[in-house]
Amino acid sequence: MKQKLNLVEGSIVAPQGFLASGVFCDIKRLGTGKGSQKGKKLDLALIVSEVPATVAGMFTTNQVCAAPVKVCVERVKKGRAQAVVVNSGNANACTGRQGMKDAREMTSILARQLHMPEEQVLVGSTGRIGVTMPMPNVKSGILHAVQILGNAPRQAEEAAEAIMTSDTKPKQIAVEFMLDGKKVRIGGICKGAGMIQPGMSATGARPAALPHGGLHATMLCFVTTDVAIDAKALQAALQEAVAHSFNRITVDGDMSTNDTVLVLANGLAANEKFRVQSSGFKVFQSALNHVCLELAKMIVRDGEGVHRVVTVRVNGAKTIQDADAAARAVANSALVKTSWHGGDPNWGRIIDAIGYSAATVVEEKVDIGYSAPNGEKILWSLKRGHPTKATFRELCLAASPKEFELHIKLNLGKACAVMYAADLTEHYVDFNKGDVTDPTTLGG
Amino acid sequence: MKQKLNLVEGSIVAPQGFLASGVFCDIKRLGTGKGSQKGKKLDLALIVSEVPATVAGMFTTNQVCAAPVKVCVERVKKGRAQAVVVNSGNANACTGRQGMKDAREMTSILARQLHMPEEQVLVGSTGRIGVTMPMPNVKSGILHAVQILGNAPRQAEEAAEAIMTSDTKPKQIAVEFMLDGKKVRIGGICKGAGMIQPGMSATGARPAALPHGGLHATMLCFVTTDVAIDAKALQAALQEAVAHSFNRITVDGDMSTNDTVLVLANGLAANEKFRVQSSGFKVFQSALNHVCLELAKMIVRDGEGVHRVVTVRVNGAKTIQDADAAARAVANSALVKTSWHGGDPNWGRIIDAIGYSAATVVEEKVDIGYSAPNGEKILWSLKRGHPTKATFRELCLAASPKEFELHIKLNLGKACAVMYAADLTEHYVDFNKGDVTDPTTLGG
Repeated sequence: MKQKLNLVEGSIVAPQGFLASGVFCDIKRLGTGKGSQKGKKLDLALIVSEVPATVAGMFTTNQVCAAPVKVCVERVKKGRAQAVVVNSGNANACTGRQGMKDAREMTSILARQLHMPEEQVLVGSTGRIGVTMPMPNVKSGILHAVQILGNAPRQAEEAAEAIMTSDTKPKQIAVEFMLDGKKVRIGGICKGAGMIQPGMSATGARPAALPHGGLHATMLCFVTTDVAIDAKALQAALQEAVAHSFNRITVDGDMSTNDTVLVLANGLAANEKFRVQSSGFKVFQSALNHVCLELAKMIVRDGEGVHRVVTVRVNGAKTIQDADAAARAVANSALVKTSWHGGDPNWGRIIDAIGYSAATVVEEKVDIGYSAPNGEKILWSLKRGHPTKATFRELCLAASPKEFELHIKLNLGKACAVMYAADLTEHYVDFNKGDVTDPTTLGG
Repeated sequence: MKQKLNLVEGSIVAPQGFLASGVFCDIKRLGTGKGSQKGKKLDLALIVSEVPATVAGMFTTNQVCAAPVKVCVERVKKGRAQAVVVNSGNANACTGRQGMKDAREMTSILARQLHMPEEQVLVGSTGRIGVTMPMPNVKSGILHAVQILGNAPRQAEEAAEAIMTSDTKPKQIAVEFMLDGKKVRIGGICKGAGMIQPGMSATGARPAALPHGGLHATMLCFVTTDVAIDAKALQAALQEAVAHSFNRITVDGDMSTNDTVLVLANGLAANEKFRVQSSGFKVFQSALNHVCLELAKMIVRDGEGVHRVVTVRVNGAKTIQDADAAARAVANSALVKTSWHGGDPNWGRIIDAIGYSAATVVEEKVDIGYSAPNGEKILWSLKRGHPTKATFRELCLAASPKEFELHIKLNLGKACAVMYAADLTEHYVDFNKGDVTDPTTLGG
């Protein structure tokens, strides 16, 4: 099962048969009178497979869900897609019937250009909430993006840039591995920096097993692969990968109306198709897990105002739900997050958050410790509810790196959970308080 | 039932037969080598009734719960108390057996001085977590406080100051009303500025009805009254008052290990004792509700770094649990709170938070509006999921006062809930990130 995984160049166009492009069509600043050419940040991306592909998706469980999400949920069910159009600058959320019409129109414009069925075109949006799409701009953007599709030397990077909102850098990866003697590749791009605590499911509906109220970015992720796989196996693999990556990150605890992960698998690697839980599946799963987790961590590291990234590991919980509740309580506590910003080990705030979480906790059994990202050499501040002999200086040192791990053992059972979390900084507050003299800084 | 309620001077010593004092005994800075006399902020308070009183209490439901809370839960059950000793600077939380010994010792020192049974002395603490109490200082503080009990001209105000931690001002109130032709008074003091989202119950155990995970300050509140009432009726009245006041506030969403509300009723007003739900009870309830709500709002207004106070009113929810979940999601959303700080009406973030809450929400039915604190003339930004014609300038104006109300109608049922909430500011982050060169700024 341990298959060699090589990092390769090329991002989403590393797998065979995929093309991409990114263009500027002035989606965000339209009509605000702020000088529309300013900056010219790319804002519309295309990802296209040369041949029809198998598709799987995961979508926000927010009950207030954007039009493009609704369109994708319906189309992904059919298991086939060939192209995706994505814009930044406008979330097309809370836009009513017009929003649904616009989302479908985006797919039909692209479908006509590429001579493919509209149902095999998907759509994603991120940006302001509650403003209808500037469709003339979007249309000219799609036409332009089709013209240059696959031609730009930086096609994948431009697509990755075009989906950014408050992100400071594009996020991308590609890996290669062998399956039945065939070379298979997976590529991915994603975006997201604020409104980040995704809780996604295959249909956008909340599975009963997901923690009550504990699901809370717009994050968008688009994965391409040339593996040959059927839709059911691809969906199973994606659910597993998202459960251990995007659904385990938080920047600010807010779940967006638009969170979406899509995978297109076009089969050009020509491996033998495999079934769920076969050895081939496990090899693919492991590679997909790696791609999703690396992309998810890039979102936390580039989160709005983030200075420190903390991996919260809860072990020894009675149930998985308990482990998840304790990890999320710590990862989203304003007081814990501000202490991380200060480089303050503050285990008092951590045990306080565990104590008010929905998890069963016994104070006298709790261990709390800190380690480097590799998880070795844990410095314990609390053992069985009692402060250890570690000095305040030692603890501060352990909580001072740009990335560290927080280890919480409840010592009540065997369940565990991890959250990839971030500190809360003045910069986050300043960035998100907006500027009421400039409405384009506001909204979703 | 509508009884005239007059505000009176005197705070907790306004009711007959109550004495108070506040002293400095250097609890916080002890042993830190920071120059212990610096500032001399009062840090130990006494509240004493001249005669034994009926008592009721509400306590944090945090599973990690401080020693003084454990002592009070046990003693309040017996329904009788005569004195309370309270310190700031140290929470006596996560201090194990020594903490329990110290909490009891505090009560026994005071009991010996006042010649009353130890079981009728209660204790409260707030401050750093995980540090044992500096008992020699505490003891000398109690002896000093007993000496000056009732003698200082500002006795109640000094008690209110002594319980402050990050509070910028003392919080106190007293009211007077008539019951069976007798003049009755209620006084109260409280403290709390950070780690504020209390969820208290009578025993510290979580009632099933309380929202899962939605319970999250140290806030302390001490109420005195000369009403004659039995313990059962007093506890019933306090639970009702806390449910609509302290359990409805949030500064940062973090529930403390120490949250406590205690009421001592010494009967010196000599009214006829009344039973739960009698007309006399209702008059008392109404006055107690007023005292608790005013004190609770003082906490939010003086919350750490708070610039704006927002009352979040959710109406038309399917169930009370839904109304509560929606109100808490909005009141604790980092993005909503930062937008309040900026004076940004940002209904997109608000509907996003409602949508990810545990409440049942239908986007096309949601109304969102803003009003002055009196709740009149609501300016709607969203009606049935659609933006209204209100202009961005008008909405900014409605969200610009230091205090305003946010109205959310789900239009799915008849249940409602309110949360008294605050913005999230750079000042909050800066204050709470601490200073790792000065351990006394850290901890709980």
